[in-house]
Amino acid sequence: MKSIKGGVTAAKGFLANGISCGIKKSGKPDLALIYSPYTCTAAGVFTKNSIKAAPLVVSKSHLTNGKAQAIIVNSGNANCFTGKFGMIYAKRTAEIVAKGLNIKANDVVVSSTGIIGKPLPFKKIKNATSALIRGLTPTGSAKAAKAILTTDRITKEMGVQISLGGKRITIGGIAKGSGMIHPNMATMLAFITTDTAITSPLLKKALKMAVAKTFHRITVDGCMSTNDMVVIMASAQAKNKLINRTGKTFNDFTEALTAVCLDLAKKIVRDAEGATKFLAITVEGAETEKQAERIAMQIATSNLVKTAAFGSNPNWGRVAAAVGSLGLKKITEETLKMSFSSFKKKDIQITVGLNIGKGKATVYTSDLSYEYVRINGEYN
Amino acid sequence: MKSIKGGVTAAKGFLANGISCGIKKSGKPDLALIYSPYTCTAAGVFTKNSIKAAPLVVSKSHLTNGKAQAIIVNSGNANCFTGKFGMIYAKRTAEIVAKGLNIKANDVVVSSTGIIGKPLPFKKIKNATSALIRGLTPTGSAKAAKAILTTDRITKEMGVQISLGGKRITIGGIAKGSGMIHPNMATMLAFITTDTAITSPLLKKALKMAVAKTFHRITVDGCMSTNDMVVIMASAQAKNKLINRTGKTFNDFTEALTAVCLDLAKKIVRDAEGATKFLAITVEGAETEKQAERIAMQIATSNLVKTAAFGSNPNWGRVAAAVGSLGLKKITEETLKMSFSSFKKKDIQITVGLNIGKGKATVYTSDLSYEYVRINGEYN
Repeated sequence: MKSIKGGVTAAKGFLANGISCGIKKSGKPDLALIYSPYTCTAAGVFTKNSIKAAPLVVSKSHLTNGKAQAIIVNSGNANCFTGKFGMIYAKRTAEIVAKGLNIKANDVVVSSTGIIGKPLPFKKIKNATSALIRGLTPTGSAKAAKAILTTDRITKEMGVQISLGGKRITIGGIAKGSGMIHPNMATMLAFITTDTAITSPLLKKALKMAVAKTFHRITVDGCMSTNDMVVIMASAQAKNKLINRTGKTFNDFTEALTAVCLDLAKKIVRDAEGATKFLAITVEGAETEKQAERIAMQIATSNLVKTAAFGSNPNWGRVAAAVGSLGLKKITEETLKMSFSSFKKKDIQITVGLNIGKGKATVYTSDLSYEYVRINGEYN
Repeated sequence: MKSIKGGVTAAKGFLANGISCGIKKSGKPDLALIYSPYTCTAAGVFTKNSIKAAPLVVSKSHLTNGKAQAIIVNSGNANCFTGKFGMIYAKRTAEIVAKGLNIKANDVVVSSTGIIGKPLPFKKIKNATSALIRGLTPTGSAKAAKAILTTDRITKEMGVQISLGGKRITIGGIAKGSGMIHPNMATMLAFITTDTAITSPLLKKALKMAVAKTFHRITVDGCMSTNDMVVIMASAQAKNKLINRTGKTFNDFTEALTAVCLDLAKKIVRDAEGATKFLAITVEGAETEKQAERIAMQIATSNLVKTAAFGSNPNWGRVAAAVGSLGLKKITEETLKMSFSSFKKKDIQITVGLNIGKGKATVYTSDLSYEYVRINGEYN
C-alpha cells in the first residue's frame, strides 16, 4: 500500500471545489462540492444520535439506492433543530445542485456542520451554487477540505494506492472534526472517493468495517454530534474487475479504505479542541475485540485520565479505576497489567493487558486541557 | 421533618472522634472512628468498580450478618491495589479497633480514601488506635467529619428528626467526596447513624432506596472510585416500635433517610473539584423513572454541557445533543422541550421534557472549570 497526498480528487473521475458563500461571518470558505461526472456507487454511515440534522435525513434517503454523484457540504450552520424549513432547505439544496450539474437530486448528498438551532441561510447557498459548480477542478480537493472546517486548525486529507488484479486503484478522503461553533458541539465529517469498481452493497460493507475500527474508535470528549457522517463514492474509473463478492480483493480494498479512514481519524484527534497530547489506548487480552474496544473507550473518555495526560502525570491508578468502573467480574487487581510510554512526550501509548482472552483494540483520544475548557466555556 | 445540625453523633447512642495519626504529610486529621456501645443493625452500599479496595472487601464481609458497632476510616491512603498486605492490614485494622472497644472484629467496618497503590501505613493507624478510642465523645461528629476529608474544602454533616409512632427518631450523617489525592481519583464516602429500631433487612432496603435517588444521582466527572461506600448503623435507642415490615412507618423512615442522603450528596457536588456552579438536571415525561435518570445522567456527564455552565453559556444545542446521543428512537426534535434557569447564577436548573411518558428524575453535577483541569492535571 502506497500513501499519496490524497484528498477527494486523487481518485480518477472526481472534481471538487470550495468557496465562501457568506455563512461564516469571518468570510472563510464555507461551501464545498465534490462531484463525479460518472455515476458512482455510494454508501454512508451516520450519527446514531436520535436528534438528527435535516441534511442527514435527506442524505440517508438519497443513499438508499446505493448511488450518488455529488456531495455538497456547508460549514457555519448545522441545519439541525431547524424544524420544517430545515428539511425543506436541505432538500432544495440537493435540487439546485442537481439542476446545476444536470443530475438527479436523489444522487446528491447534503451535509452541514456548525451552529445548531439557527435557520440555514439557504439563499446564500442558492446564490453561490453556480460559482461553486463553475470552479470544480480535478485538483480542487484542498479547497473542499478547507471549506468544510469549522474551528479546526488544519485541513485533513489522505490517500492510498494499491493494486487490485493488476489495476492501480486510489482511495482518498477529506475530513473535519473537533471544531466548535457557537452554540453547539463538535461534528465529525469525512468524505471519501475512490475509482474502484465495486458494487454498492460491498462498498457499504467495506465502509462499515473501516469506520468501525477507525472513526468509531476516536473520542475527544465523549459527546456525539447530531451531524456526523462518513460518505464514500466509487467511480469505477480504475477499470478494475468489479468487486462483487467478498474474498481477497474485497479484503485488500477494505484494508486500504481502513488505512485512509484511520489516518483521517487520527488527524481529527490531533487537531482536537485544546489538544496538547495524542493518546493511543490499547487494550489486549480481552475476551473479545468488542470488549477490548469498550474498555479502551472507557479509559479514553475518563476526564481523570485525560487531565493526567495534560499534566504529564502517568497516573495508573486512574487507568485501573476506569477499567474497573465497567464492573466486569473477571478483571481483578491480579490479572490487570498496565504499561505506559513516557507521559512527557506529545504521543502517549497506554497499554492495558487483561489476561482473560485474546481480544485487542486501540482507541485514540486527546488530553483535556485548559484550552478545551476555554474554547467550550468562554464562548458566548 | 425537622432539619438539625446533624452528623454521626446526633442520634442517640453514638460516639465519634477524629485525630491525626501521621498518614497525611500535612499533619491534618486522617483517622476517624464512629462507635455505638449498643449493638446496631447495619447496612452498606459499595462501589460497583471491579477493582475494589481491600477495606471494601473486608467491610462487605463484616456486614453480611447485618450488624456493626464501629466504623474506622482513614484518609490519605486508599489501601487499594495493595495486594495481599492490603487485605491483611484492613483485617488487622478491624481487629485492633475491636480489641480496644471490646467488641467483635466482625462488627467493625473499615474504610479508606486517598492514594492508590501505596502500602497502607498500618503502624501509624495501630499506634494511634488507643488515643482515637480514648477521645470518643457524644459530640465528636465534627472531628470525624474532618478526619475523613481529602482535598474537600468543607466538612459535610446533615441530620433530620421525625416522629415515628410517637417517638422522635434522629438520622444524621457525614460525607466526603470529590477530593483528589496523588495519584488517584475522587472517592465518595458517607457514614450515617440513626437511633431508629429497625431490622437489618429493612435497614438495607431503606438505604438502597435512599442511595438510588441521591448518591447515585450525583456526578462530578463520570469517574467511579474503587473506594466508594455508604454505611448506616441503627442503634434502636430511640425506643420506637421496631420497624419489621414495609408500610407507612418504613416509608417515613426511608423518606427521612433519603433527605439526609440528598443533602450530603448535594454538599459533595457543591464542594466538587474546581466547581463554580451547581447544576440540577431534571428530566420529565420519560417512559420510566429509570430512563429519566439515564438521560439526566447523560446530560450531566457531557463535558460540553459542563463547560457551557462554567462559561455561563445557556447552550441548549449541547443539551439536545446529549439527550439524542443515547439513540432513543422516540425522542425527536418535535417532542423535546428544554428550559433553563439563568446560567449566570451559581445554581442552575436545566429541565428537559420528553413528552413520551411520566418518568421523572433529577441528577446533580458541577461545571467543568480550569480549576478542575489544574487540580487533576498539574499535580505531579
